[in-house]
Amino acid sequence: MSTLLHTTPVNDGFFMPGEQEPQDEIWIAWPERTDNWRNGAKPAQQVFIDVAKAIAEVTPVTMTVSADQYDNARSRLPEHIRVVEMTTNDSWMRDIAPSYVVNKDGERRGVDWEFNAWGGLVDGLYFPWDKDDQVASKICNLRGDARYRAPIVLEGGSIHVDGEGTLYTTEECLLHPSRNPDLTREDIEQVLKEHLGIEKVIWIKNGLYNDETNGHVDNLIHVARPGEVVLSWCDDENDPQYQISRDAYEVLSNERDAKGRQIKVHKVHIPGPLYISAEEAAGIDSCDGMEREAGERLAGSYANFLITNNRVILPLLDPKRDDDAKAVLQHVFPEHEVVGVNAREILLGGGNIHCITQQVPSAH
Amino acid sequence: MSTLLHTTPVNDGFFMPGEQEPQDEIWIAWPERTDNWRNGAKPAQQVFIDVAKAIAEVTPVTMTVSADQYDNARSRLPEHIRVVEMTTNDSWMRDIAPSYVVNKDGERRGVDWEFNAWGGLVDGLYFPWDKDDQVASKICNLRGDARYRAPIVLEGGSIHVDGEGTLYTTEECLLHPSRNPDLTREDIEQVLKEHLGIEKVIWIKNGLYNDETNGHVDNLIHVARPGEVVLSWCDDENDPQYQISRDAYEVLSNERDAKGRQIKVHKVHIPGPLYISAEEAAGIDSCDGMEREAGERLAGSYANFLITNNRVILPLLDPKRDDDAKAVLQHVFPEHEVVGVNAREILLGGGNIHCITQQVPSAH
Repeated sequence: MSTLLHTTPVNDGFFMPGEQEPQDEIWIAWPERTDNWRNGAKPAQQVFIDVAKAIAEVTPVTMTVSADQYDNARSRLPEHIRVVEMTTNDSWMRDIAPSYVVNKDGERRGVDWEFNAWGGLVDGLYFPWDKDDQVASKICNLRGDARYRAPIVLEGGSIHVDGEGTLYTTEECLLHPSRNPDLTREDIEQVLKEHLGIEKVIWIKNGLYNDETNGHVDNLIHVARPGEVVLSWCDDENDPQYQISRDAYEVLSNERDAKGRQIKVHKVHIPGPLYISAEEAAGIDSCDGMEREAGERLAGSYANFLITNNRVILPLLDPKRDDDAKAVLQHVFPEHEVVGVNAREILLGGGNIHCITQQVPSAH
Repeated sequence: MSTLLHTTPVNDGFFMPGEQEPQDEIWIAWPERTDNWRNGAKPAQQVFIDVAKAIAEVTPVTMTVSADQYDNARSRLPEHIRVVEMTTNDSWMRDIAPSYVVNKDGERRGVDWEFNAWGGLVDGLYFPWDKDDQVASKICNLRGDARYRAPIVLEGGSIHVDGEGTLYTTEECLLHPSRNPDLTREDIEQVLKEHLGIEKVIWIKNGLYNDETNGHVDNLIHVARPGEVVLSWCDDENDPQYQISRDAYEVLSNERDAKGRQIKVHKVHIPGPLYISAEEAAGIDSCDGMEREAGERLAGSYANFLITNNRVILPLLDPKRDDDAKAVLQHVFPEHEVVGVNAREILLGGGNIHCITQQVPSAH
């Protein structure tokens, strides 16, 4: 039974838990498109497997895959990872899967946002995006979860919630004219409150430098738990990231969260700067939309990790910086096992581990 | 967890229950191919919906559908019928889904037969059939059921079991050179025994007249319960079905089942004879393989019903015969509700209600 509901989550007593809360499942979509993933997507597929395996040791994983790649995905993944056929336009499950909400009676429902490939006809990254937009509904149908269809364009990676009333986002993305040009900041806050059960929105100005998602918050910061945030940092004054991180720090330091807490900020230095190599660019089919030229600055960030039950799955991106990043994360998550996965291949596709995963929280 | 097992069900203590035993779920595949289903498959889709709704009142239904038809199927089916994306070559779930086996400890596993579209390159009905052959594995994966890959070509509709050690089949199909030409009757019996936990095979000579499946047993007879069978009958000496039914009756009357019972045979007269009309044939795309010419005799049979929990879903095919068929079935199943569905559209595609459904038995 997958009912489409015409009320709102908050009216029905539902809210979105934080990522640090217990999870029942993680969904990932198999990478395939050769105009985004180099060398026929084979290197990316291997990294998605690595990520899925690291998660599956603590949380069950479902991998969606097209009909054409079903046999390949099924045979390359270990048997304990569930594989189901589901057509997508690409593989950013954070942005296309439902945002799950729960209530205090042990029920769980999906919020299905409108999706327009990070900007639709204005500055979207590919066309069409119809199969991606169906994914939230298909997951709810398959799992038997009731579903709300939210009335705004939004990607799951453009928000972070702490599960206690606070949502973090960026103005760059949520107020971008390619998403909901007819809505004001207040209109958008209202929809977020109604659909995620949050009370306060903390608006950071910009996301990471040169992030093609129009500055998704999940590539700049990560909410570790209520009142604690990991922030991508940069020490080089000549790097455009320098000022972006400082501006974000300023906001986070001066705001209080929904519960009135001061926010503790943990800085983690960005890798690199990293650039796409000529060899890497040569392996990608030419297309309209995504910039995959040799020398293009990559929006690399250690904040783009996943918290899943007692693990943190951290992208490894730069041998000079990885150990420090891991040490920061281990300090922030003393009870968690921080597991690194070499993730440059995901970065080449335009995101990282948080972007390719979406959690189904445990019922409360 | 969907383990591929390398033992056999009988070694592991598993057997196939009869269709009359409790069921947890029924799987159906949405009809789409326009070289089999007339008028863009729209009339057939409506009948599949009618069948799904009749079943769903007593047993949960999952409908599989291609990516292209997902929105259409989802919007036309009531919300309580689950819809999942799954690519098929056509829509005969009886023949492509797993045959489920159970043990006495409440476990359930799938038997995944090789599938070659009712005859492969010898006399198969379409090419390719690769997506159909993946279906059993995909269902086991999605549901998390361990799976056996059986080493023979077999369709679920070519066998009937009573759940107490007896299997009914036809020589026409199981010994046909287009299935397992290198195996003897004894070899095939051995595989059936190992994979379904049966002890005795009752071999009927031929299936229904002009059945393009090479005489699937499920279009000729139906096992109502151990020791009781419904048999398609024909009173017209000039109809080729006359002798086929008599031959089957002869076998059933003289055989004992695995438990030593004499078999009680309930005769139900076939509809018609029925033929495809010129108008119907005109709505079907031309193709190689399936015969869909005006005037072609249709393999219509009331035995092609489904038992699902306390219902019998009966195809209605001929106003002159439907009431008698329903009366026979109601007599055979006094505790069941016999629900008729107008099913000529399924017959035009080459089968009927039993052919388009596959049950997941309840754990024992």
